[in-house]
Amino acid sequence: MTTRVVCYGLGPIGMGIARLACTRSGIQIVGAIDVDPQKAGRDLGELLGRSAIGVTVSIDAARTLSRVHPDVVLHATQSSLAAVAPQLRECITAGANVISTCEELAYPWSAQPQLAADLDAAARAAGVTLLGTGVNPGYAMDALPLMLTAACAEVRAMRVLRIVDAAQRRGPLQRKIGAGLTPDEFAQRVREGAVRHVGLAESLHMIAATLGWQLDAGDDTIMPILAGCAVVTEHVSVEAGQVAGVHQIARGYIGEREVITLDLRMYVGAPDPQDTVEIDGNPPLRMTIAGGIHGDIATAAIAVNTIASIRKAEPGLLSMTDVPLVHYW
Amino acid sequence: MTTRVVCYGLGPIGMGIARLACTRSGIQIVGAIDVDPQKAGRDLGELLGRSAIGVTVSIDAARTLSRVHPDVVLHATQSSLAAVAPQLRECITAGANVISTCEELAYPWSAQPQLAADLDAAARAAGVTLLGTGVNPGYAMDALPLMLTAACAEVRAMRVLRIVDAAQRRGPLQRKIGAGLTPDEFAQRVREGAVRHVGLAESLHMIAATLGWQLDAGDDTIMPILAGCAVVTEHVSVEAGQVAGVHQIARGYIGEREVITLDLRMYVGAPDPQDTVEIDGNPPLRMTIAGGIHGDIATAAIAVNTIASIRKAEPGLLSMTDVPLVHYW
Repeated sequence: MTTRVVCYGLGPIGMGIARLACTRSGIQIVGAIDVDPQKAGRDLGELLGRSAIGVTVSIDAARTLSRVHPDVVLHATQSSLAAVAPQLRECITAGANVISTCEELAYPWSAQPQLAADLDAAARAAGVTLLGTGVNPGYAMDALPLMLTAACAEVRAMRVLRIVDAAQRRGPLQRKIGAGLTPDEFAQRVREGAVRHVGLAESLHMIAATLGWQLDAGDDTIMPILAGCAVVTEHVSVEAGQVAGVHQIARGYIGEREVITLDLRMYVGAPDPQDTVEIDGNPPLRMTIAGGIHGDIATAAIAVNTIASIRKAEPGLLSMTDVPLVHYW
Repeated sequence: MTTRVVCYGLGPIGMGIARLACTRSGIQIVGAIDVDPQKAGRDLGELLGRSAIGVTVSIDAARTLSRVHPDVVLHATQSSLAAVAPQLRECITAGANVISTCEELAYPWSAQPQLAADLDAAARAAGVTLLGTGVNPGYAMDALPLMLTAACAEVRAMRVLRIVDAAQRRGPLQRKIGAGLTPDEFAQRVREGAVRHVGLAESLHMIAATLGWQLDAGDDTIMPILAGCAVVTEHVSVEAGQVAGVHQIARGYIGEREVITLDLRMYVGAPDPQDTVEIDGNPPLRMTIAGGIHGDIATAAIAVNTIASIRKAEPGLLSMTDVPLVHYW
């Protein structure tokens, strides 16, 4: 069964998704949408540095969607759910299932319950599924740790540690984590909301809700990680004492007890990248992926791999814990 | 939503399942079935060493099922699908969803396609879901590795290593793996089919089918692991040179290329128990659970935890890759 796909959003992540989708048998790209006038009008294959595939990038989303009637839209534009909601509604109205990398869509029921309910109702009415995913939120710090709990007779607490060497990642991400700023500049940008990983709170609430835990309190703190020595990447130069990246921790409490700890460290030059999940339970479990999961590759992969699951899922706004097991296919 | 559960089969695994189900809010045990006349007629709670729960163990499955109308049957009797098929049909006929630890049910479509089709048709007709699971097959060497592939843009091969220190496991398992036999006795029992882990072939085919791989060949070999020094457990005594347990490897090939390797080592005194998954892909991934997943606890946990997923699943015979993410709840 070939799945007809539209790629909506052709920034670094969207381009990665499109590049991967192009190579997969079982997927036919039938449309591409981006707001950038320098991309509009070009053949998507050529834009990707490949041969032409006969798909012209358009800035007119509604027209593209109604013309090509995709089975699935792979959506990768922005992190803010409020900002992308009109785009998602266009896709839903066109009768397309949507897999979006919008971080706030991964688990919107806690932070934006009304918008979540509205999108759910729209998706149900159209008979399509809407799902937010990516490596984080959507996988490394929520769905995968939750899958691990399947083996537990009891879970008392969960701690997830993700250390990313941002030097291996895309330029926008290196800038988003504040690499190269002074500590004062970093503090200022945190106050402005410009430096942070979007999605840690979503992962926290996805875990709590899935485990059936009512959190009494939660917090999400952002600190700088300072470079001990100079680090130069393709995109930034960081001197010793400048900010190498971000250390963000989200915590969830039941009473006084810290039951969920999501500890994310993204910085250039991180010496021991890893994804580690510790479950305080019966049995206790400690899982490590040495080197960690490469975020840019994985986000594109997860978006594409989720196609098989979303096509089997119920209509409505779902999370990664609602759909059949996501896997490479 | 309370789930009304019948526990069908009260051997070591079934008792573990029943013990766990008793403690979970959200589950009400409404019936218990076992063929052992020494268990029949007793209160299940008392049989578990707890206080009475008002559920009398019965040897009459059909009568119990029709009387109590469970939402879910937690079934743990035998490894052979042919042997348990009549039991599963009784449950289906009674309108109950079934989660079974029958190893051959975890992925029966390759080895027993006609029986799988018949059970699927019966489950669909009754509007119930039928699923085989447990720690292995069902999780450690198939569903969890498959979940890891979600992060991969490409998967070229998968290797799973599970090392179990059988000294920590139940007596029947220690005997099933041949602990304490001479090498000749072990070879004889392998020829008789009495010593083997049932389910490695099922895991192999689940992985291949889920990844969309057509295997050209597969094999499943069983070798003894000999004790280097004496090992004494609660259940067996193994002298140096005697069999400590089993080393079983299932391999799947595409052409000459070994694309799936499932390497299972279960023996008393294993020094470095672990679950390790290596994915040769983009990105490559190497996941390790140091110490491994405790099989007896995990099988009971997975059976009980799957209740939440099976109640959201479609009718029919499904595998762990078809149902919404299984997690503690």
